[in-house]
Amino acid sequence: MPVSLGQLAVRFGCELRGNPDTNIERVASLGNADARSISFLGNPRYRQQLAETQAAAVILDAASAAHCPVAALVCANPFATYARIADVLYPAPTAPPGVHATAVVAESARIDASAHVGPLCVIGERAIIGARAVIGAQCVIQDEVQIGADTRLVARVTLCRGVQIGPRCLFHPGCVIGADGFGFAPEARKWVKVPQIGSVRVGSDVEIGANTTVDRGAIEDTVLEEGVKLDNQIQIGHNVRIGAHTAIAACTGISGSTTIGARCMIAGMVAMGGHLDICDDVTILGTSMISHSITAPGVYSSGIPFEDARTWRRLVGHFKRLGQYADRLKKLERRAAEDLPEQDEEDD
Amino acid sequence: MPVSLGQLAVRFGCELRGNPDTNIERVASLGNADARSISFLGNPRYRQQLAETQAAAVILDAASAAHCPVAALVCANPFATYARIADVLYPAPTAPPGVHATAVVAESARIDASAHVGPLCVIGERAIIGARAVIGAQCVIQDEVQIGADTRLVARVTLCRGVQIGPRCLFHPGCVIGADGFGFAPEARKWVKVPQIGSVRVGSDVEIGANTTVDRGAIEDTVLEEGVKLDNQIQIGHNVRIGAHTAIAACTGISGSTTIGARCMIAGMVAMGGHLDICDDVTILGTSMISHSITAPGVYSSGIPFEDARTWRRLVGHFKRLGQYADRLKKLERRAAEDLPEQDEEDD
Amino acid sequence: MPVSLGQLAVRFGCELRGNPDTNIERVASLGNADARSISFLGNPRYRQQLAETQAAAVILDAASAAHCPVAALVCANPFATYARIADVLYPAPTAPPGVHATAVVAESARIDASAHVGPLCVIGERAIIGARAVIGAQCVIQDEVQIGADTRLVARVTLCRGVQIGPRCLFHPGCVIGADGFGFAPEARKWVKVPQIGSVRVGSDVEIGANTTVDRGAIEDTVLEEGVKLDNQIQIGHNVRIGAHTAIAACTGISGSTTIGARCMIAGMVAMGGHLDICDDVTILGTSMISHSITAPGVYSSGIPFEDARTWRRLVGHFKRLGQYADRLKKLERRAAEDLPEQDEEDD
Repeated sequence: MPVSLGQLAVRFGCELRGNPDTNIERVASLGNADARSISFLGNPRYRQQLAETQAAAVILDAASAAHCPVAALVCANPFATYARIADVLYPAPTAPPGVHATAVVAESARIDASAHVGPLCVIGERAIIGARAVIGAQCVIQDEVQIGADTRLVARVTLCRGVQIGPRCLFHPGCVIGADGFGFAPEARKWVKVPQIGSVRVGSDVEIGANTTVDRGAIEDTVLEEGVKLDNQIQIGHNVRIGAHTAIAACTGISGSTTIGARCMIAGMVAMGGHLDICDDVTILGTSMISHSITAPGVYSSGIPFEDARTWRRLVGHFKRLGQYADRLKKLERRAAEDLPEQDEEDD
Repeated sequence: MPVSLGQLAVRFGCELRGNPDTNIERVASLGNADARSISFLGNPRYRQQLAETQAAAVILDAASAAHCPVAALVCANPFATYARIADVLYPAPTAPPGVHATAVVAESARIDASAHVGPLCVIGERAIIGARAVIGAQCVIQDEVQIGADTRLVARVTLCRGVQIGPRCLFHPGCVIGADGFGFAPEARKWVKVPQIGSVRVGSDVEIGANTTVDRGAIEDTVLEEGVKLDNQIQIGHNVRIGAHTAIAACTGISGSTTIGARCMIAGMVAMGGHLDICDDVTILGTSMISHSITAPGVYSSGIPFEDARTWRRLVGHFKRLGQYADRLKKLERRAAEDLPEQDEEDD
Repeated sequence: MPVSLGQLAVRFGCELRGNPDTNIERVASLGNADARSISFLGNPRYRQQLAETQAAAVILDAASAAHCPVAALVCANPFATYARIADVLYPAPTAPPGVHATAVVAESARIDASAHVGPLCVIGERAIIGARAVIGAQCVIQDEVQIGADTRLVARVTLCRGVQIGPRCLFHPGCVIGADGFGFAPEARKWVKVPQIGSVRVGSDVEIGANTTVDRGAIEDTVLEEGVKLDNQIQIGHNVRIGAHTAIAACTGISGSTTIGARCMIAGMVAMGGHLDICDDVTILGTSMISHSITAPGVYSSGIPFEDARTWRRLVGHFKRLGQYADRLKKLERRAAEDLPEQDEEDD
């Protein structure tokens, strides 16, 4: 749906430098844009691409506006404004109200008349689905699940018994919310299953990626607060609590009973232990092993960048000999101290 | 279903200190329990919470019983007893015998009359489903799969062609058992697919978590022995064999043809190489890289805990200079040896 | 379907040493083979097993042929020849042309008459499914997806809106192709979703493992070129491009906008950062953290093999003290330089 630059400027509070009647049909990167595209500059590093762009217009901030060779939508946060404009140009596919004839819906389920239930869904007893919610094809909604208004399950989402989802959430295919936590009591060298009787509560505006799993609580609930964003293939253990607006990248695992604060940013393939407390505003870099609690906002890390395999093997060899090196260092220091008796001996 | 303390004590062989007629309706943590709840103390560390609990009764061991301010169920293994009592108070949802009208079942499949096949399942040719098995909504059971008695597939489980599952197993949504192993023969800088003609055999009492994958064997079978417990998002490669009662936490990957012994405990996000032998009773801590076989029971590890990013960067810098440091150490030792010619020179 | 050694030799260009009329019914490992089995020797390390094999015949190379106690099919690449022979003996299950009565197919979808659409599939508007394609049970094919000829989706595959799949691909259960990339613009300490308007394009002969996820592009497309092989539970971020015939093992994650060249081999649980360029013919060993681009073919690594936990804890302690050790080393060098003023002081 084409829209004019003037309309975009008014709607999103941008200063327009250029012809308000120019129609925009699509978004594109600076390098691939044409006369019907709008692009954006989110990072001054790409000013060279800005100089050469063929876009009809570019969304950028005041500092970059002077370098823009085409029409400009000037605003404080070009990336966020781009996101909103892209949403206008590429609206999410609509889904008609009603329940598809092939869906299997329990009699006691309460589905708002404005909600969409797609083909081959299964909706359990006493489930409640809110206004304008979209339940895509082949979702499994078990008994007593509650889904808030305007929440969208793209397709093939599984919500296990009693899970509660807030409004305006977006869940991607293959995610499983509310499977049993991993709880077993050891006895006589075997395992006794511990029933997982808590549930999962998800706040508003939460996005959950494809094939991500969020386990139900052992006794109390697992909780994702409002605005949490989870990428694909994340594992959230039982009784975890994740604070508002925290974002977690793909392949990260959070062990049971850990609490993560608000506005944290956790990168990919991070392994977080159980029963930890991570305070608000913590950033954790990729592949970190988080083995104890974090009490101060800041950036944390434990990944070691790669080398060519031969160099790396040598480094690992040195690493494995660190105890020997430390001993040798201390021995040298002792000798030096004997040679120079007027100096104190150092100890670690 | 409420149950009296007296009934619980008799049924689970506990010593009851308190009124046998007190009715219990639910379980709760020590801190959240009320007069209708039973709680448990699994770890003496939480005795402070015990002192303040409002529970009707607490399950604990003899050593802690004297500290219990309310009724006590005294037993040797409070956590296992708790698990069994929770199972009484929160029985797994029942599923009526019979095949749902929307399931697609091959004529040659043999489904026990007491088994449940849920809505929109697909059951292939010559599949066999045992007594009281529960096949939840939308499972795909391919041709010639066998499922033992009392096994429960929660929903959306995929069992590929010919997979054999023992009795009393519990499989969570999204798990895929028996997809092809990753086998390709290199030829002319391309890959020739190696047919994966083995299958997967799973023993009794195995639990498999959400979105976990267990590949079929290349020639012979992949095997999970009885009592194995797999958490979510675990990957088990082709021809792996996992011994009885071994438990593996989420996000761990086991490469092809590795054999793991009985009663091992493998933590989360462990990466295990292929063609290894891990003996019985091995514990592996989180994020370890297991690159060679383990022949002695014990605890193994290779994760490095995080630091703040600035400290970490410096540590990585030092790590990358270890070769240089080792050279400088040796040089100092040589000089010291020259100064003290009566001592032997050290070499690494 | 039994086949004679003579037929196999002719069909696959092997030199036959033995009776061409011997019938082969199955494949087996050297150790488990019987008189109706064919086996192979891919690695001279297993010559002892060759000496004892009961197989009817063994596929091997000229150098090993002299050691073969039974009939031999001699060829240059025994593993690739084995793969082709196994494919003859164990043909993929056939699927009859036509659309299962329980599939839900949009009117505007174009499904080739020779294609198979299995039970309970959902096929969206304007989807195109090519000749002899096999869409297994419960697949979700969203609007405008295109699937090439002879491509096989085993079961429960999700292809999101507009995804394009080439011919002769093989996708395993639970994989999700084309879910939204993880894109959010920060604003006022919250996140604004960035519409993911690119798609995914997959070339010919690509295999994708169970529960692997490949995200759609943010603006342009995510691309897997011909012959790419992805194992299970891999995460491919938005706008990644993977070159032809690159193979990636399980649990690896590739962050957004990274480009990987042709013929790379990436092992399991590798974490690759975003916006990187990895050139052709790169091998990356398991658990590596790839934090910057790679411009030269070769083998790269960053995993540290495990130790027993006590030894490991000490090594980590030394690692955390590396800064202190470096300081002490420099101090010793300064003293030594003072003792030997005629030598230059070393600095790092």
